[in-house]
Amino acid sequence: MAVMTTAAAPFITDDFLLSNDTARALYHDHAAAMPIYDYHCHLPPEDLAANRQFDNLYDVWLAGDHYKWRAMRHNGVPESHCTGDADPYDKFLAFAATVPHTLRNPLHHWTHLELQRYFGIDLLLNEHTAKEVWDEANRQLKQMRVSDILAKFNVALIGTTDDPADDLAHHQTLADDPSILPDTAVYPAFRPDKVYNASADPNAFIAYIDGLAGSPCETLGPLLDAIDASLDRFHDLGCRLSDHGLTHIPNAEVIRDAHETDRIYRAIRAGNATAEERDRFTLAMLIHVAECYHDKGWAAQYHLGAMRNNNGWAYEHLGPDTGFDSIGDYRQGPGLSRMLGELARKNALPRTVLYNHNPNDNYLFATMAGNYVGAGDTSGQPGRIQFGTGWWFLDQKEGMTWQINALSNLGLLTRFVGMLTDSRSFLSYPRHEYFRRLLCDILGRDAEAGELPRDMDVLGQVVRDISFNNAAAYFGMTLKGKHA
Amino acid sequence: MAVMTTAAAPFITDDFLLSNDTARALYHDHAAAMPIYDYHCHLPPEDLAANRQFDNLYDVWLAGDHYKWRAMRHNGVPESHCTGDADPYDKFLAFAATVPHTLRNPLHHWTHLELQRYFGIDLLLNEHTAKEVWDEANRQLKQMRVSDILAKFNVALIGTTDDPADDLAHHQTLADDPSILPDTAVYPAFRPDKVYNASADPNAFIAYIDGLAGSPCETLGPLLDAIDASLDRFHDLGCRLSDHGLTHIPNAEVIRDAHETDRIYRAIRAGNATAEERDRFTLAMLIHVAECYHDKGWAAQYHLGAMRNNNGWAYEHLGPDTGFDSIGDYRQGPGLSRMLGELARKNALPRTVLYNHNPNDNYLFATMAGNYVGAGDTSGQPGRIQFGTGWWFLDQKEGMTWQINALSNLGLLTRFVGMLTDSRSFLSYPRHEYFRRLLCDILGRDAEAGELPRDMDVLGQVVRDISFNNAAAYFGMTLKGKHA
Amino acid sequence: MAVMTTAAAPFITDDFLLSNDTARALYHDHAAAMPIYDYHCHLPPEDLAANRQFDNLYDVWLAGDHYKWRAMRHNGVPESHCTGDADPYDKFLAFAATVPHTLRNPLHHWTHLELQRYFGIDLLLNEHTAKEVWDEANRQLKQMRVSDILAKFNVALIGTTDDPADDLAHHQTLADDPSILPDTAVYPAFRPDKVYNASADPNAFIAYIDGLAGSPCETLGPLLDAIDASLDRFHDLGCRLSDHGLTHIPNAEVIRDAHETDRIYRAIRAGNATAEERDRFTLAMLIHVAECYHDKGWAAQYHLGAMRNNNGWAYEHLGPDTGFDSIGDYRQGPGLSRMLGELARKNALPRTVLYNHNPNDNYLFATMAGNYVGAGDTSGQPGRIQFGTGWWFLDQKEGMTWQINALSNLGLLTRFVGMLTDSRSFLSYPRHEYFRRLLCDILGRDAEAGELPRDMDVLGQVVRDISFNNAAAYFGMTLKGKHA
Repeated sequence: MAVMTTAAAPFITDDFLLSNDTARALYHDHAAAMPIYDYHCHLPPEDLAANRQFDNLYDVWLAGDHYKWRAMRHNGVPESHCTGDADPYDKFLAFAATVPHTLRNPLHHWTHLELQRYFGIDLLLNEHTAKEVWDEANRQLKQMRVSDILAKFNVALIGTTDDPADDLAHHQTLADDPSILPDTAVYPAFRPDKVYNASADPNAFIAYIDGLAGSPCETLGPLLDAIDASLDRFHDLGCRLSDHGLTHIPNAEVIRDAHETDRIYRAIRAGNATAEERDRFTLAMLIHVAECYHDKGWAAQYHLGAMRNNNGWAYEHLGPDTGFDSIGDYRQGPGLSRMLGELARKNALPRTVLYNHNPNDNYLFATMAGNYVGAGDTSGQPGRIQFGTGWWFLDQKEGMTWQINALSNLGLLTRFVGMLTDSRSFLSYPRHEYFRRLLCDILGRDAEAGELPRDMDVLGQVVRDISFNNAAAYFGMTLKGKHA
Repeated sequence: MAVMTTAAAPFITDDFLLSNDTARALYHDHAAAMPIYDYHCHLPPEDLAANRQFDNLYDVWLAGDHYKWRAMRHNGVPESHCTGDADPYDKFLAFAATVPHTLRNPLHHWTHLELQRYFGIDLLLNEHTAKEVWDEANRQLKQMRVSDILAKFNVALIGTTDDPADDLAHHQTLADDPSILPDTAVYPAFRPDKVYNASADPNAFIAYIDGLAGSPCETLGPLLDAIDASLDRFHDLGCRLSDHGLTHIPNAEVIRDAHETDRIYRAIRAGNATAEERDRFTLAMLIHVAECYHDKGWAAQYHLGAMRNNNGWAYEHLGPDTGFDSIGDYRQGPGLSRMLGELARKNALPRTVLYNHNPNDNYLFATMAGNYVGAGDTSGQPGRIQFGTGWWFLDQKEGMTWQINALSNLGLLTRFVGMLTDSRSFLSYPRHEYFRRLLCDILGRDAEAGELPRDMDVLGQVVRDISFNNAAAYFGMTLKGKHA
Repeated sequence: MAVMTTAAAPFITDDFLLSNDTARALYHDHAAAMPIYDYHCHLPPEDLAANRQFDNLYDVWLAGDHYKWRAMRHNGVPESHCTGDADPYDKFLAFAATVPHTLRNPLHHWTHLELQRYFGIDLLLNEHTAKEVWDEANRQLKQMRVSDILAKFNVALIGTTDDPADDLAHHQTLADDPSILPDTAVYPAFRPDKVYNASADPNAFIAYIDGLAGSPCETLGPLLDAIDASLDRFHDLGCRLSDHGLTHIPNAEVIRDAHETDRIYRAIRAGNATAEERDRFTLAMLIHVAECYHDKGWAAQYHLGAMRNNNGWAYEHLGPDTGFDSIGDYRQGPGLSRMLGELARKNALPRTVLYNHNPNDNYLFATMAGNYVGAGDTSGQPGRIQFGTGWWFLDQKEGMTWQINALSNLGLLTRFVGMLTDSRSFLSYPRHEYFRRLLCDILGRDAEAGELPRDMDVLGQVVRDISFNNAAAYFGMTLKGKHA
């Protein structure tokens, strides 16, 4: 492949993704200045609490990013330069040489947007520009702490993702000293997957449960008490949000007798529960924690449909979360209807955001969310059940457009809580910008085609709401500093 | 959200949805003047027979419209103002206040198109314009009967949807007095879902069957006789069309021995049929009635894929059909292949229209229809098996575009029987206009891109055929008055 | 329908499908001159070896083309004029009369592109132009042999599709006399579906296996030996490629003990294997042959998702492959993960191309391919596991665009091996042109929208690579004549 030469004009312009006048006005006049409410990400609490300063572009950009590893492997880069122990610069160089081959992949946009927005670098990254980019970025990183990054991107809130058994020490540090990140509220989110994942190794399940409780939980009661205690710890540190990751909500019979749940729980511990019983237990626990969220005024998130660890070699040698997951084809409708229907029946359905991993499920999810927005609920809150933004592999122009269209056609786009980064990297904040540009472009196209009223006050308000206001109102977590 | 002010120019223009010159010529010169052949809707026969005049905009527009209720609930409107007993104007006001929040939802287009076409109202509906719209529409409704509406929209035919046990009294009234609706033929359509729905409560099944027959049907024979008698009653009133609503056609073994069907029927009545047997019975009855349609020269419709009653609270308190249904993820291929394949094998496949509810199934349905268009059939009729237009949640620009594209790519668009309203409301006729505009826009774009020959005679004929001629020829029901 | 008159300007222009300047430059300056590497088709080896000259347009164009039959049946053409025994010209006339009704169907484009490119005929085909087209094409066909066609389209390589039991005599003829097709290398591809298809009639399975081996294979060993011998025969004639057609890869337990495979094999022969055992056998054999490919340096192809023989009448009267197949809705994820994951675990995964038949599976397949590109593999080869181009019903503008977008968003488009004809007809070569025009148009649109760097050297190289270079490097089969 020919060398990707640096274009005379920068690739990322002021009007990147904005194809029409209305879009440009919406973005520049309404979207650009809104703060970021990043209610769901995987940033390490220790880095936030330490207000970390990164040594080099590898540490802040490549380490832990399985999107980049997948692209590099696709390009023939050996594992030593992905997850392996090659020199950080060599790994960076291998990534740089891969970037010209990512044309039309979101990585190509993310990469150049991030270089531009964080470091003002307009070069197209490739093996020839790698050294210059590396040196310049590293020079700037020496004067850049986490707090600088958050201030630069006007980040009002960060929701991390945390295990119920986590001691939340870093969150406590941040709570104790608000000056570490003066204008950014940071809260944990409760991710109890291990509490109900009884389909895996029973010993791992038992070990996790007993560790959470601090002592053996022979019956269900102490487990529920341990969950309650954890929920309280999270709540006290400002958490108002949970997250769940499953292939799908089990399509199992709802348990309405607590003794039955206890009986199955004990059978799981004894190693003699059937697959159907384990599914019923998972569903029962999902319903139980959702009722807790409802009681506490929290919101719940469900990320459904990932098919993980598909590469036998990689799983044995590299472990999970190393870039060998894909989109699955699970049936999503029956389990969602079971869980949400039962919670609605009990008037115990918390605010809920549903995210799908397979774009086939966009229309199903969008209509499913619409089944639970009102009826028994008397809160009067708009958009109580949300169809969440494009997730993981859908977190790009095509995937986000599909989600926006599905939500528009089947629900109320205007009530959408919008974008999140879902990222492990501090260099991912331009994804909010990307999303906002895309949203403005879609609205602008429609308006210029006569399919929306061309009223900039109305459209501008929609853009500001989806960029920030809706999420802030929906999740309702306390902001601080200049955002308070 | 800011108030949606009335734009200087009307939102719905003459060229709404028509983005190019070819599209504009196709719509205005070819589509606009064609009559409407509304072969499938849910208009109440009693309103037709009574040539009803509606008291107010609530009665004609909001009562019974679960699309609007879903949007209102999404916007935080309490149930009292959806299905509840709030004052009609207050309900209308709650809807009006929701409309600005429906931007990009088809309701936003339907709403303003309907206000324009029925009442000449160009205002954007919102809480501030609500009173003016209410008063003006109600004023006009006082001089508007059903016959006026049908004349205004040039409706040549209406096919209602009726239960086999229905006495069809209102259809008889219309047949007896052709002057009630002078230019609109109205016929029932046969919807026998309860005849084969043995998967639900057996007592309800038995009660329905025995009611249909007028006496206990202990064996299958009397049931088949009762179906025959009902088919004859429908046929005598001009019906040439049936409809079926199922989650999916059962993927069950085809029964080729009538004694086996009878045995299972009796087991169902005795309450001891297995799930598999009930599926086989449903499939057998579907095949049986399809053979009857074939013998009588009727067409069959299958609406597949809805997942109903997902909200436990709503089902207990509000009952079915109140806006808590969604798109399901059922496997459609195997059952369709079983049923249609067996009917083809017997040379007993009637003209058939297949509608999917999940857009994922567009390509499957379009190719499945193509498996049965010819072969053993010697009728020479083009497009015998149809992939039907976007249904329910797909009844909007994106959904209809997908259906048109799938049909185009995998079948013959030119032979398409086109749009239907599928509506309970007399204010839904502009959906035909919407569909025609969209169709013309798609053809126009292709022609201007050089992907279709730019021959307006040919393209105009295609538009006229899909707008009306194809359906009239395909369903072949007798027209009356100026359309005869 | 009005007669489709011949437009003043030809329908197929130089810039067909090319909507922007960048696309036009990419196509004309980079794509057009590239040779064709047709690694997967169903051209008859006997026609290649005989350097056949076709008698008339029916023989070369309509005979055996179930795409055309489906369209004709859809248009009401009787079976006598599709697969039946009507006069060839009458069949052609029935097709010609159908063509105007294929507007927006890919057949409309293929038809006119093929008439233009092979015969220089710019007429729109319909019943009125049929005679003129028939006479002119037949006149030219008299001076056109297979070698002329291949030279005209610059076909560097053809991979046919062959059964392991085939004697490959025609391939031997071509190998023995390179002058038959001087510049086109022709190789067989190994398609062993019958070797592992134990789900069908056991007698047919046994007969096939024993025929392949030349003697009864009572145990697994002789079957594996027979497969080895066949693989060697194919390899010796230059084959480096296999193909597999299944509804889906079985989601069965992987067998890691050869005795178990042997036990099940014998149970299948004895007619007493369970459905689950047959699935496990199929999976075991798929894994076995894939390991063989890996050892031999071959590539594997998997075509998944077709639902065949859906019309009972047609299957009984016309047999398979007559146009009654459709897109299926099989779950694809679990079986793919089983097979590919196990092969990866054993470090025995060959280069692999995955093709889906249901467009719903695009995103799943694209991410699944990405799970296996690197990790244990140390070849350094880019794009080792490919998400293959739109197949069968997806082999048109919409389907190919979706595939290109899915691959772009989830993998590396730049490493794509591109188009194949998958055709039984020598008149299908313009499909490569069609694909290239589409690819150039997509890249051009993106570049002009500022979503790709506007560097024609880079984009031109991408186009040349996807048109030819990538496939030539990936499959690595020996070229000949001017391409050597």
